[in-house]
Order: sequence, then C-alpha cells, then structure tokens
Amino acid sequence: MGRIGIIGVGHTKFGKRSDASLRELAFEAYSSALDDADMDSSKIDGSVVCSATHYDKQRSPAGVVAEYLGLNPQPTFNVEAACASSAVGLRTGWALVSSKLHDVMAVVGVQKMTELSSEEIQELMGRAGDVMWESPFGTTMPAYYAMYATAHMAKYGTTEEQMALVTVKNRKYGSKNPNAMFQKPITTEEVLKSRPVSAPLKLFDCCANADGAACLIIANAEKAKKLTDRPVWVAGLGLASSPMSLAGRTGPLTSFDVTKNAAKAAYQMAGVGPNDVDVAEVHDSFSITEILNYEDLGFAKPGSGTRLLEKGETELGGKIPVNIDGGLISKGHPVGATGASQLFALTRQLRGEAGSTQVDGAKLGLAQNIGGIGMYSAVTILRA
Amino acid sequence: MGRIGIIGVGHTKFGKRSDASLRELAFEAYSSALDDADMDSSKIDGSVVCSATHYDKQRSPAGVVAEYLGLNPQPTFNVEAACASSAVGLRTGWALVSSKLHDVMAVVGVQKMTELSSEEIQELMGRAGDVMWESPFGTTMPAYYAMYATAHMAKYGTTEEQMALVTVKNRKYGSKNPNAMFQKPITTEEVLKSRPVSAPLKLFDCCANADGAACLIIANAEKAKKLTDRPVWVAGLGLASSPMSLAGRTGPLTSFDVTKNAAKAAYQMAGVGPNDVDVAEVHDSFSITEILNYEDLGFAKPGSGTRLLEKGETELGGKIPVNIDGGLISKGHPVGATGASQLFALTRQLRGEAGSTQVDGAKLGLAQNIGGIGMYSAVTILRA
Repeated sequence: MGRIGIIGVGHTKFGKRSDASLRELAFEAYSSALDDADMDSSKIDGSVVCSATHYDKQRSPAGVVAEYLGLNPQPTFNVEAACASSAVGLRTGWALVSSKLHDVMAVVGVQKMTELSSEEIQELMGRAGDVMWESPFGTTMPAYYAMYATAHMAKYGTTEEQMALVTVKNRKYGSKNPNAMFQKPITTEEVLKSRPVSAPLKLFDCCANADGAACLIIANAEKAKKLTDRPVWVAGLGLASSPMSLAGRTGPLTSFDVTKNAAKAAYQMAGVGPNDVDVAEVHDSFSITEILNYEDLGFAKPGSGTRLLEKGETELGGKIPVNIDGGLISKGHPVGATGASQLFALTRQLRGEAGSTQVDGAKLGLAQNIGGIGMYSAVTILRA
Repeated sequence: MGRIGIIGVGHTKFGKRSDASLRELAFEAYSSALDDADMDSSKIDGSVVCSATHYDKQRSPAGVVAEYLGLNPQPTFNVEAACASSAVGLRTGWALVSSKLHDVMAVVGVQKMTELSSEEIQELMGRAGDVMWESPFGTTMPAYYAMYATAHMAKYGTTEEQMALVTVKNRKYGSKNPNAMFQKPITTEEVLKSRPVSAPLKLFDCCANADGAACLIIANAEKAKKLTDRPVWVAGLGLASSPMSLAGRTGPLTSFDVTKNAAKAAYQMAGVGPNDVDVAEVHDSFSITEILNYEDLGFAKPGSGTRLLEKGETELGGKIPVNIDGGLISKGHPVGATGASQLFALTRQLRGEAGSTQVDGAKLGLAQNIGGIGMYSAVTILRA
C-alpha cells in the first residue's frame, strides 16, 4: 500500500451559519485547504463529498459542491456513513489514490443543519437508527447514548459528575478554538444543572447540531513530497460495522465492539498501539461517548475511562491529550464535517502548528469517529 | 493496478415490490449473488451499499443492510451518485480492493421507491438538480431530458418516431427478461400515442420508478481465480462530473460532455475503443438518453445515433447490441440498483450465460450510467 499524505486542510467556523449555504460552506473549507497547501484547484483530479443525508434540501450534494468549487469535469461522488461520513471519505479517497485512479483529491465534509427545527432534526436522527423496529419507538440519538450511559453507570459506578468532566475539559479547550461553536468554559455544576435531554444525559452532556465544513487535500507520496514540505501521512485506517439495531447487538451496552474492531485494524496497519499515540480526537457526541471511547481505543481499561479524566491525563500535558480542539461538544457537530474536522486538528498538531494547544513533539495522532449509534466506527492514525 | 474480478452477480425482480422492504430487496440480490458465486458470506470482508437518498424512510441504509445481510463486523458504508450510485459503488469497491484494504467485497445497489406517490417522487427528482436555482422552477427529470431531446431534434432533425424506436427495441428484449418490470412488447404507434409527460417526451419514452436490488461480488485476482473458474474482469473505469445546473454548462444540449469524458477515461484504461465493444448497456432513463449515449460513447457520430436504431445495429445480431436485457425502459429504474443491474447483464453476457439474448462470442462489454441530469457519468468496461 502506497503512502498517502494530507497536504492541505481547511475548516470553516462551525455553528449557526445563516450566512452560508451548503455549497458556500464547502467552498470556504476547500479554498482554505488550497491556501493551506499553497496550491490551486488545477492539481485536484477528483473529489469525495461527505454529508449525512436529509438535513439539507439538496439531494446528491457532490453535484452542486463540485460545480461550485470548480471541480468539474473531474470525478466526484458522495460518501455517507452518518456521523462518520468524512472519516470514511478519507478512507475512500485513500483507496482511490492508492489504487492510482487518482493522484490528488479533495475530501470535503459538509453539513447544513440549523435551518431545521429541533423537532425535525430529532426525527431525522432517529431515522439513522432502524426505522422499522426502533425509531418509531422514540430512539433518537440522545436516547440511544443514554442507554449506554446507564449501562456504564450500573456496571462501573460511573457518575454524572464524572461524565460532566468531559464537557468541562472540552469546553476549556474549545475556548481556544476560533472555529468552535461554543467558546466559553463551563463548570461541573453548570453541566449538572442543565436541563435533562434523555436521562442521565443533560443538555451540556450533548454536542450541538451545527453548520460547517472541513476539507482535506490528499496526494500520493510522490505528489505530496513535490507539493508540500510538511505532509502528514495516513498510517492506519480502521473501519468496522455493528448491527444498526440495538436489538441486534450482543453483550452489554458498556462498550462499542465496533470501535474496538476499527481500532484493532488501524493499529495493525500503522504498526502501533494505544501507548504510542501522542494526541487524539475521539467522538464526543455525548460526554459518555468520550469515556467509552477511551476504553474501546485502549487508552484506559474497561470501566476506568473516568480515571483518566479525574487525573487530567487527557488534558494538554497529560499522558494522552484528547479533543484539545474542543471536541464535538465545543465545536458543534455538523455531521458530515466532523470526521474531517478531527483530522484537520490532528494535522495541525502533527505539523506543530496548534499554537496554545500544541502537544510538544506530537508525532502520532489518532482520530476516532462513530457513525450513528455505532453502526459504523472509523479509526484513522496519522503520522508526522 | 491489480486486476479485479466480478465473481458473483445477483438481481431481484424489479417493479412494484410491496412484498419486500429495502433490506429484504438487498438480501434477495446478495444471496442470489452468493449462490451464483457458489460461496458463503464468510469470505466477504466488506460491503458498499449504493442507494439514492430520500426515497426510503431509512437513512444511512448501509447500517441496516449490512446487519440484515449478516455482514457485521466488516466495514460498510454508503456510496451515492444519484442514478449512477452502484456504478460508482463498483469503482469504489475496485479501489478498496486494489489498494488492498479489502480482498472480497459485496457491492449492493438497492432502491425502494414505489411506496411514494408520483408527486413525492417528482419533487425528490427535482432535488437531484440544483435546489437553489433550478428545481424550484419545475425542473424534474423528464423536464431536464426533454430539453436535451428538443435540442437534438432542432439541431439534427431527430423525430419522435425515431426516439420511439428505443422503447420498441428495449421492450422487445425486456419481454425476454424475467426480472423486468415490463415484459410486454410495444409498437411505435403505442409509444407515440402515450400521454405527454414533458414534451416531446411521452409516457413510454420514460423509464419507470421501481423497487429492486442488484449485487456484484468482486475480488482481487488471486481470490477471484481461487473462488471461481469464470471471473469477469474489470478492464476500464471512467467517471466524470459536469455542473449540476444546466445554467453552468457550456455548449448545446445535444450531447453530454460528462459521458464523453467518462468514456475517454474508461477506454484509455482498458486500452480499447468503441469499435471493440461487443455488447453494451447504456443509460436509457428516457428514449432520447439512449440516442445521446450512442453518440457520446462513440458508437455513432454526433446526430447519427438514430441511424443505428433504424438499421437495427443495436439489436441482437447488429454491430453493437445495446440494452438487450430491456434497459431501464423495460426493467424499471430502481435508482441505486441500476448501475449494478447493467453490470449483472454484462457479466452474464461475457460468461455466455445470457440464454436467448446471448451475443455470440461476447468478450468485451461496456456499461454507461448517468447520475441525475448528467452531473455524473460512469463508464465501466468488463472483459471475459
């Protein structure tokens, strides 16, 4: 397998972006990625557009995005894996470049959500679960993850206070990220007092729906070395699936097998283990999700993810800094853009360009991105 | 680039399938592909699910399809390119196998459309055009293609009678295809007398919305040779894009540059030209589309596609038999399944298993699949 490099990254401000349509958000991320790579559009020989469906009126958005970005007549299409769409987009782009169908591609993650009412979004989120046997009975995303939280609490004694620490940490770092939707630190007490969404998850345990886009420009080794002097290499790619329905899953709801499987594949491909990771981005759609991910990625033993938080091990300066760009909880979660946003943050870390949140000497970064209620999980390992 | 083989193909009956849900249609195609390959599910190490969005209530269908097909925990995700979804799915699977991330994959194209009213479908079809500048003004798919028909008539003198010949031919062969939605031959007069849909296109110039699925099992050369003694090889893959909006296109609406570009790439990769093709499947969403495709693929000179029809050159026994499985016009067009359905037909031809519609000695097959109003076009060349 050839080495594929990330040679440019771009990111919009996430949040309520009434100023920009879907195509404009995509353009903003794409043009900033081109600027970052110091190149023009002419070298891009294909694009992958990653967007969860239904949030925007536009169907098949690759059509309008490729047009607006000036990427015709090069190949383009849509890749979707719910919240993991653009992590899977990178995997797909990696394969297209590795297979030599393409040399330099743009992977664009984009989502426009805030024009919908929260009722509409809730209903749509449920439909990323099984529409035949589950969503008609009220399984929206917070309800699904609340079941995981409850199971973890019951088995390991995890508390709401401990879960709140995820939000407190991520909001602290979100305050340093100008692209984040929420840039104000928050206290444990504020999290605990926030209104219930789906018990035990409260408002500030949850990430927010947002508009936004992020873009990765990737190239084969030869082109990457020619086009930039600071490529970041894709070292490991893991993707796994799990039954979409909870009913179809075996075992307790205290971990995600899908993430363990994806992590195993990514670690194996990169030839590394969890202890080698210098900086990580994990899917914190809810506070509990980040804790489960610590455990499923091997950063902590089962049931002990909360101890990493209590000891500050996932803070800047800790053993394995996690989501020090603010995570989904601070940045917001424009579904299709989230995976690429994580990889944007890692790329800047591995280049040593993360400013006040730079992890000293970071050489290996890991991003983990869950789709829906864990029917997909993607783990990507990048190397400086 | 490694050689990738198609080692099994499956196809459901297309049409109004009130007896089967989306996941059941996918299973039907997948299990018949496994039977065809004489293998079980255990060797499949990943899947690509291809489905146009919004027609079914289920979002992110790869989740429910992989579960129902027993394909967890292997990687899966969704690929979408409107009507070209599963042709692009094959390209994506090809890249994933070529890059060695996978060895044996299932590419599943599936669509469930007939539970929607025709008004709902019309509105959704428009939304595969530009929702900002075009679809609000009435550009549904028949209206888009009617503009192409009108331009072709104006420039080349193409007549409604000539367009009707496409339907007459395809219905003739559809009558021999047990999977086709329409299995009754039709006369030119019946086509001409059918009710107007979007002038000059009448009801029988149009393909029909349908439910259905088709599946391709692909493998790298080593596995393909081990698993079957009759692999069909993917020789050429071309994909191109065009502005989604008609307003963004240059040149007259008498041909699709997007198809010319895709064909050029596919011919080049396969090292062949249009005269080498023994049997073809082209996108006949409307009768005019097939005529344009003859010209854009190089089977006929610009403006002379209708002469192939009049001379019977695209009939069985002609110079280049086209859509002798009945085409979209007879089979119906379950959007996500159509590309895989074309490749199913070619695979059977190249194996010499097409029965009464077998093209003698067919060694090279070409499939061409348009997405939407030509924002994508995929050309795939298979070799026995």
